[in-house]
Amino acid sequence: MELNHKDLLGIEHLTAQEITLILDTAVSMKEVSAREIKKVPTLRGKTIINLFYEPSTRTRTSFEIAGKRLSADVVNISASSSSVVKGETLEDTGRNLQAMNPDLLIVRHSCAGAPKRLADVLPTPVINAGDGAHEHPTQALLDAFTLRERLEKLSGLTVLIVGDILHSRVARSNILLLKKMGANVRVCGPRTMMPHNMELFGVEYVSRLVDAVRDVDVIMMLRIQKERQQGTRFPGEREYARFFGLNRSVLQHARDDVLIMHPGPVNRGVEISPDIMALPDSIILDQVTNGVAIRMALMYLFTGK
Amino acid sequence: MELNHKDLLGIEHLTAQEITLILDTAVSMKEVSAREIKKVPTLRGKTIINLFYEPSTRTRTSFEIAGKRLSADVVNISASSSSVVKGETLEDTGRNLQAMNPDLLIVRHSCAGAPKRLADVLPTPVINAGDGAHEHPTQALLDAFTLRERLEKLSGLTVLIVGDILHSRVARSNILLLKKMGANVRVCGPRTMMPHNMELFGVEYVSRLVDAVRDVDVIMMLRIQKERQQGTRFPGEREYARFFGLNRSVLQHARDDVLIMHPGPVNRGVEISPDIMALPDSIILDQVTNGVAIRMALMYLFTGK
Amino acid sequence: MELNHKDLLGIEHLTAQEITLILDTAVSMKEVSAREIKKVPTLRGKTIINLFYEPSTRTRTSFEIAGKRLSADVVNISASSSSVVKGETLEDTGRNLQAMNPDLLIVRHSCAGAPKRLADVLPTPVINAGDGAHEHPTQALLDAFTLRERLEKLSGLTVLIVGDILHSRVARSNILLLKKMGANVRVCGPRTMMPHNMELFGVEYVSRLVDAVRDVDVIMMLRIQKERQQGTRFPGEREYARFFGLNRSVLQHARDDVLIMHPGPVNRGVEISPDIMALPDSIILDQVTNGVAIRMALMYLFTGK
Repeated sequence: MELNHKDLLGIEHLTAQEITLILDTAVSMKEVSAREIKKVPTLRGKTIINLFYEPSTRTRTSFEIAGKRLSADVVNISASSSSVVKGETLEDTGRNLQAMNPDLLIVRHSCAGAPKRLADVLPTPVINAGDGAHEHPTQALLDAFTLRERLEKLSGLTVLIVGDILHSRVARSNILLLKKMGANVRVCGPRTMMPHNMELFGVEYVSRLVDAVRDVDVIMMLRIQKERQQGTRFPGEREYARFFGLNRSVLQHARDDVLIMHPGPVNRGVEISPDIMALPDSIILDQVTNGVAIRMALMYLFTGK
Repeated sequence: MELNHKDLLGIEHLTAQEITLILDTAVSMKEVSAREIKKVPTLRGKTIINLFYEPSTRTRTSFEIAGKRLSADVVNISASSSSVVKGETLEDTGRNLQAMNPDLLIVRHSCAGAPKRLADVLPTPVINAGDGAHEHPTQALLDAFTLRERLEKLSGLTVLIVGDILHSRVARSNILLLKKMGANVRVCGPRTMMPHNMELFGVEYVSRLVDAVRDVDVIMMLRIQKERQQGTRFPGEREYARFFGLNRSVLQHARDDVLIMHPGPVNRGVEISPDIMALPDSIILDQVTNGVAIRMALMYLFTGK
Repeated sequence: MELNHKDLLGIEHLTAQEITLILDTAVSMKEVSAREIKKVPTLRGKTIINLFYEPSTRTRTSFEIAGKRLSADVVNISASSSSVVKGETLEDTGRNLQAMNPDLLIVRHSCAGAPKRLADVLPTPVINAGDGAHEHPTQALLDAFTLRERLEKLSGLTVLIVGDILHSRVARSNILLLKKMGANVRVCGPRTMMPHNMELFGVEYVSRLVDAVRDVDVIMMLRIQKERQQGTRFPGEREYARFFGLNRSVLQHARDDVLIMHPGPVNRGVEISPDIMALPDSIILDQVTNGVAIRMALMYLFTGK
C-alpha cells in the first residue's frame, strides 16, 4: 500500500488505511532513535527544507532531528531571517526554493491554508507543520501513535479534548483523525471556545470538567495560546485554571487508568497542575519521542522512498 | 587551467578564461542536483562558514545547499546572533573564525569592501556573497551561466539592465562580466540612478524603456531595494512602475524571443508585471537553480580541489 | 581512566587527574582539525543539541564545528526562536529535548546554575557552555591546554588574571583549574571588581597593573562585559583602559617571554592595546583553535565513547 497524495496538508484528506500505514511505518522508525547509532542512510542525498514562519523549538527540532537520523540534508529557514521581509509573495518564495531542487518542504505558518497555497504551485511534496487555526496533522498522528502504542487500538476509545476547540489546529486534526479511526470524542471548555456545529464533527460537548472526565480513556489538554487570546473571549488565566485546569481533585472523577496528554509546551498551573505531569499516566513526553518517529515515517513516505 | 586567486571578491579581478572555467565547472555540478541522490563526497571533511551580516533567504540557502551537496560541513553565522553586537572588529571576528580551521568563508555584508578586508588578513579563501553597492560576483556568474545555457554564447549578445544601476551590486558585477565576455550592455532607469561615467564602463544609456528594449537579447530587471531608497532620488513605487516597470505593452517593442531575468526577490507589480513571470521567456527560476550549481563550482575551485 | 561524572557543570567538580585526561584527549583531537579531511566517524549517529539562551558566535560555532568534525548531528537552538518565549520552564524544555533522544546537551544561560538544573532532571549528559557569573569550564580547559602546549606544564606557573574577577565566569573557572593543577594565581583590577574572600580561593591581589605583571608567566586579560556593567562599579572605559589596559608600556615591567591571553571577543583599546595582539607572545588565537579540540575531547568523553 502507498499514500496517494503528493502532500500532507491535513488529516482531512487521509483515509483510515493511510493513517494506519503511517503509524505502522513509524513503529520501525521509532526503533532507529533507540539505537546506539541513531542513523540510517535512507534519505542520503535528499534535501529537506524547514520553512517556519512561526517560531517553534519543539516542532522544528523534531523535524530537523528526524531528517538527520534519515541522513537527509536539512536546511532551516525562519521567517525573521527570510526574504519575506522583503515583500516577496509566499508562492514566489516557494517557487524559488523549488528551483533549488529540494525533495520535501516542511511548512509552518500563522495563516490557515498557507501550506496548501505552496502545495498547489510546487511539484515538491509539502508537509503542513501547523497552519493558523486550520490543521496540525503531524501532531494528531503522533498523538494517535502514542495512544495506539499504549492501548493497542484507537477504535472504540473515548477521548476527551479540553480547551479552545474553536481555534485549535491540534484539536481539529485530532478530532478528524480520531473519528476516522472509530474513536469517540468528547470536548470541554468555555462555551465561547466551542464551535457552533459540533454535531457535524460528531463530537459530544460536556460543559463541566468534572463531568467530562468521567469514563474517558484519555484526557487531552490543549495549550492556552496566551499570545492568541485577545478581547472578551478568554476569561483570564486564573479563571480558566479554576474551571478547566486539570488537577488531582478533578482526576478523582476519572477512571484510575486514564491517560493524560498535552501537545506542549505546557503552561504549568494553567491547563494542567504541576504534580500531574509526573504521574505514570501522563504520556506527554512519549508524545514528544513519538513525534520524531512520525516525522521520520512521513519523510520516508513522502519523498517517494 | 586553474584560478589564480585565493579569493573571489568581485568579477573585476577575473579574466575571461577564468570566468569560462567557472561556468564550465558549474555544468557538471548542475548535473548533481538533478540526480536521485543529490550528493557527492567531493568536500567531505571541509568546513564552510556562511558569515551573513545582511539577511538573505535565497543566497544563504543556495550556498548552504551547495555546500551540503558537496558533503562539506556548513556552519551558518548571522549578524543578529553573532558577537558583532559585542563590538569586535570585522577583522578580529575573521581571525577568530580562521583559528577554527575553516576551508572557505562566504561573506555577505552591507559595507562595500568588507569581504576584501577579511581576505586581506586571512589565509582562508573568501567568497563575496554581496557587499554593499560594490559587487555580487556569484550573482553575475549564475546569470552568465543561465544566458550561456540558453543562448549558447555570451559574446555578441546585447543585454539591457533596467533599474538603479548606480547603487546595484548586481548591475555592477553583471556589467563587468558581460563586457569581459564580449557582450554589449545597455542600461535604462531614472537619470538619478545612473552613474556619471557610463562611457567608462562601456555601456549605452537609453532613457525610455520602450526604446531600450528594442533589439536586445536579454532584459535584466533589477530589484528596487525599497529599504535602501531614501530621500529624493526615488520617485515612488507607482511612478517607477509606470516608467520603468516591465509589462506586456512594453514587451511589444522587444524581440519575440527576448529573455527576461531578475535576481529576485521580485516586487511584483513594481519592477515586473505579474503575468510576465509565467511566460516561457522568463528564466528567473533558472537563475535560482543555476545559483546552486555556480556556488558548488566555486566551492570546489576555491577549496583547492 | 575515565571521567566519573555524567555532566561537566564546572571545574569545581573535577580532579587534577580528570583535567589531565581531558587535556590529553584533546591533543589527538587537535590533530584531526589539522588534516586535509577534518572529519572522523567517532560520533556518527549521535545527536548533540546546542541550547543557547545567550548569543555567542565563538562558543556556539566552536561546539558546532567540534561536533561536525566528529560526525555527530548537531542541532542549534537559540533562545530567541525557542519556546522559552512561550513561558515553558527550563526543566520542561529540557525534558522535551530529552524525549527526542539526544546524546549530549550543550547549555549556555545567563543564569548561574541553569545547566545544573537541567543536569539534575535529565539522564543525558550536560556540558556547561557558560552560566551567568558562575563557571565557563570549557574556556578554562582550553586555556589550560594552550598553556600546557606552550610551557609544557601547569604546575608552578604564575598566572595573572586582570579584570572583573568578581563577576567573571572565565576567571572563576580558570582560578579553580589553575589551583587544582598547582599553578599560582595573581589577580588585578578595580577593587570594586574583586571578591571579598580572595584568600579562600588562594589567590594574591596586586592593585597596580605595573606591579602585578612582574615575574608572571602568563597575563590573562578578561573581557569587559560592557553590557553587564551598570551602576557605579565600573569607572568607564577610558578610565579602565588607563589603569588596567595592557599596553607596551605596562609590558616593559613584565618578563620578556610572558604569554598574553584573552578569552575574546577583545574590546580593542579597552582591555588590550591593538599592537599587542599581533605580538608573537599573544596566544589569543591559539586559544580559539584549541577550543575546538577541547570541545571535541569533551564530546567524546561525555557521550560514553
